[in-house]
Amino acid sequence: MHDVPCRDTFHLVAIGYVETPFLQLGDAPMQGKDAMLSGTIILRPAYAEGIKGVARGDRLLVLLWFHLGQRDVFRVHPRGDETQRLKGVFLTRSPHRPNPIALCEVEVESVSATRIQVRGLDAIDGTPVIDIKPVLT
Amino acid sequence: MHDVPCRDTFHLVAIGYVETPFLQLGDAPMQGKDAMLSGTIILRPAYAEGIKGVARGDRLLVLLWFHLGQRDVFRVHPRGDETQRLKGVFLTRSPHRPNPIALCEVEVESVSATRIQVRGLDAIDGTPVIDIKPVLT
Repeated sequence: MHDVPCRDTFHLVAIGYVETPFLQLGDAPMQGKDAMLSGTIILRPAYAEGIKGVARGDRLLVLLWFHLGQRDVFRVHPRGDETQRLKGVFLTRSPHRPNPIALCEVEVESVSATRIQVRGLDAIDGTPVIDIKPVLT
Repeated sequence: MHDVPCRDTFHLVAIGYVETPFLQLGDAPMQGKDAMLSGTIILRPAYAEGIKGVARGDRLLVLLWFHLGQRDVFRVHPRGDETQRLKGVFLTRSPHRPNPIALCEVEVESVSATRIQVRGLDAIDGTPVIDIKPVLT
């Protein structure tokens, strides 16, 4: 029984950002499973140690902060399609949500100390990266 | 070419928290795929609209904020096993990481306006919830 169960705000740090060919909203493919275009994760040097061991062929889950997302959205038309009924935002992958975190599964093409070249990054250029995790199979 | 590519801190809001039988660190199963114990997601009333449409049997990805995680950790022993070589933290699912976000896949058992009863929640009681997404298949 929690009356005040937890602090209600936290701060996130950008561990890096992405470089992609998508320069503005609308350019990036939606849930681009077919987004085989190359992109790059640029890590801030302070976090370089955290990717030691990443290798070509690894599948990674990249957590992005959709800095252009609207945070006061609670219901959306799925995939932005207005012919579809409004749905609770937590039943969708809309970039507009209270905490605009997106998940993107990518495959590693090459790695250097602070750069990971990947396939499948469907975010716009400059999107902050907040975490990277291995894909569990 | 980004010199100052993006703001480097962001604020997260807790959209709710979890109630589970795990009262302290070490109680919760690690990456508990077998964590079939029931738990509950308690949504803050302001976010209730966002879960409209959630139904029994749905599979959801719950994003948690591991408020007890250490944020200055860049290399870890996988699964806390000290016989294993240190690995970059982004190649692991360690709860100790710069932004201690965890992903937990659950199955919905029942729903009310602000509570979702689920199976598979492997976090300690009181852990803040920061996002909920549908599992894409």
